[in-house]
Amino acid sequence: MTSIYLDNAATTKVDREVLRAMAPYFDEFYGNASSMHMKGQEAKKAVEKARGIIAHEINAKPEEIYFTSGGTESNNWALKGSFFENFPRKNHIITVKTEHDCVLNTAKWLEGKGAEVTYLNVDKKGFIDINKLKKAMTSKTFLVSIMQANNEIGTIQNLEEIGRICREKGILFHTDAAQSFTKISLDVNKMNLDLVTINAHKIRGPKGVGALFIRKGVKITPLLHGGGHERGQRSGTENVPGIVGFGKAVEISRRTDYKKMSALRDKLIKRIIEKIPDTKLNGPEGEERLPNNVNITFKGCEGEALGGYLETKGVYVSTGSACMSNTNAQSHVLRAIGLSREDQESSIRFTLGKETTEKNIDYALKVLPEIVEKMRVAGKIK
Amino acid sequence: MTSIYLDNAATTKVDREVLRAMAPYFDEFYGNASSMHMKGQEAKKAVEKARGIIAHEINAKPEEIYFTSGGTESNNWALKGSFFENFPRKNHIITVKTEHDCVLNTAKWLEGKGAEVTYLNVDKKGFIDINKLKKAMTSKTFLVSIMQANNEIGTIQNLEEIGRICREKGILFHTDAAQSFTKISLDVNKMNLDLVTINAHKIRGPKGVGALFIRKGVKITPLLHGGGHERGQRSGTENVPGIVGFGKAVEISRRTDYKKMSALRDKLIKRIIEKIPDTKLNGPEGEERLPNNVNITFKGCEGEALGGYLETKGVYVSTGSACMSNTNAQSHVLRAIGLSREDQESSIRFTLGKETTEKNIDYALKVLPEIVEKMRVAGKIK
Repeated sequence: MTSIYLDNAATTKVDREVLRAMAPYFDEFYGNASSMHMKGQEAKKAVEKARGIIAHEINAKPEEIYFTSGGTESNNWALKGSFFENFPRKNHIITVKTEHDCVLNTAKWLEGKGAEVTYLNVDKKGFIDINKLKKAMTSKTFLVSIMQANNEIGTIQNLEEIGRICREKGILFHTDAAQSFTKISLDVNKMNLDLVTINAHKIRGPKGVGALFIRKGVKITPLLHGGGHERGQRSGTENVPGIVGFGKAVEISRRTDYKKMSALRDKLIKRIIEKIPDTKLNGPEGEERLPNNVNITFKGCEGEALGGYLETKGVYVSTGSACMSNTNAQSHVLRAIGLSREDQESSIRFTLGKETTEKNIDYALKVLPEIVEKMRVAGKIK
Repeated sequence: MTSIYLDNAATTKVDREVLRAMAPYFDEFYGNASSMHMKGQEAKKAVEKARGIIAHEINAKPEEIYFTSGGTESNNWALKGSFFENFPRKNHIITVKTEHDCVLNTAKWLEGKGAEVTYLNVDKKGFIDINKLKKAMTSKTFLVSIMQANNEIGTIQNLEEIGRICREKGILFHTDAAQSFTKISLDVNKMNLDLVTINAHKIRGPKGVGALFIRKGVKITPLLHGGGHERGQRSGTENVPGIVGFGKAVEISRRTDYKKMSALRDKLIKRIIEKIPDTKLNGPEGEERLPNNVNITFKGCEGEALGGYLETKGVYVSTGSACMSNTNAQSHVLRAIGLSREDQESSIRFTLGKETTEKNIDYALKVLPEIVEKMRVAGKIK
């Protein structure tokens, strides 16, 4: 049966090479990386190798990479850790209305602890207004948290410009790069980043492992206290196979052809808009958009039902963030770019992966118009 | 070459059956458990199956199990989550001087946030005094956190008695069962437990996954905010293969013969004490001790060096908690039971595993006396 997975922003299939790299660390080199003996030291060596690969990818030093359990932990740590380090001297955070829930809900929790949070608006394509960011900064601002690329509509913010402003003002700059890491350029020095969230399972690595880049000299309070792992900053027995898999995933990502992926993305967008009336792309085009992200409003088609029909044809997509489905919430991202409630509920996210072929895209383009047509006819009869 | 791993309290080798159970969830059923489509629902089903197995093991309901990244996160969550839920109405925590660092250092951090913490003393075998626990309770106490079994010296506390008292006083009762889970009986109802920390990598499951039992009706603040996974209590994409492996590890643990393990433990203890002069068991004996734990002071032998010599013979042990080696700290556990600094530094922990055979123990017993003898002679010459 046809099975075309176009939900790679939710999670990806673990790569064969990644699995092969991880395998020996489950039952051969299974030591605790904190153990003094050889079984521990083998594990530690593997962790440090992965740390080096990941650091190099974002132009950081290995000792600036702290392994975590994933993007959510890294984002929670960046916000809470910098808050507890700076409060009550400073208490102001600037973030954006289209951030991932793990930034927004952490910020909301911190408001109850004494933080003041500015949630910047975005324009119709999902971009922030740099002047409004500047204006929002006060002497109380300790953190700006702005994602590199949006998980729903693929909008890539100008981190270089934002970083320059933050550095000038002496404000910490955090980015959630969970969706963009390895897909587009991320340079912690060129972008003046102090804190960066990355993870493995979006790039064909395993679930349950991520990292936070913390610039040398930047102090944030640990989120997990304990035995002093990760140079005292993040306690908890190191997830050695996970970390090894993360490193390998970064390594193999260098061989992915993102130009080709962007071309497939553009073909999918262009043909949908051409072939199916009353459709609209959400988010920007070209270089300003993540190479794997397509988000389309199909007017008059309920998104979840459309996803269900596509699934009957073997095509897996989503209506937005997978994480949102836990809360049955509307998309705060589509709302922020000005979509009506009806249009929010009529939108579908297609996210391409390393294995997505032109044939896959052609197939999706073949089945989509019929489904949309049928749904619209049925909707009118009802 | 001989390779006898007697450091199973630090971490364990992942079981073949566990690996087999996990395998398909990396690259076949790789969906995000929060995704609506079939790929997500397959993953979700596997997560829920594991949840059921784990809940059953401790006589809990499936919906009382919340998956985390491991013991450290679960302990941090139990303490911080109950603190932030109860503060400032109540601010007092009672714990014990011999708890794991991730409880002690979390408690210490909370002291900086307004918590008052009582650290109970223990007797020479590592037991708390129930009367002192009772006396420490005040109208401000919201949490008692006492581990089921100590990670260094194997002391098993009387959770049933402690639980009864906590329930009478309306105080939340948390236990860190990271070392004891599946090895000795743990019944959340019989023991009136409200919060329980468990994890996978100590029981031949994978690193990077654990759980917190939260009794239905007990409210604690989330530690990781975000997309609302785990019924809104613990956000972050579910580590599906890890959770599946955790469930399988619990399942297969039921086949481990802990009576046999205790007998091997007792043989190791008895023979060391008999054969090697000036040795002393740390912690209790018999049923009051974890079935896999042996901790011995070898007077006049520096523990780390002794571990190193044992390693040259293919025997892997530790001087105490693996987590401690990050901080180069002395053992706060051995100090708490009254060992002199010299004796603390002359102690070795041997921890047995499912695969440990009588032959392994005999081999360790064969090489140990020679090494200790040589070290003591060399020490005297120096």
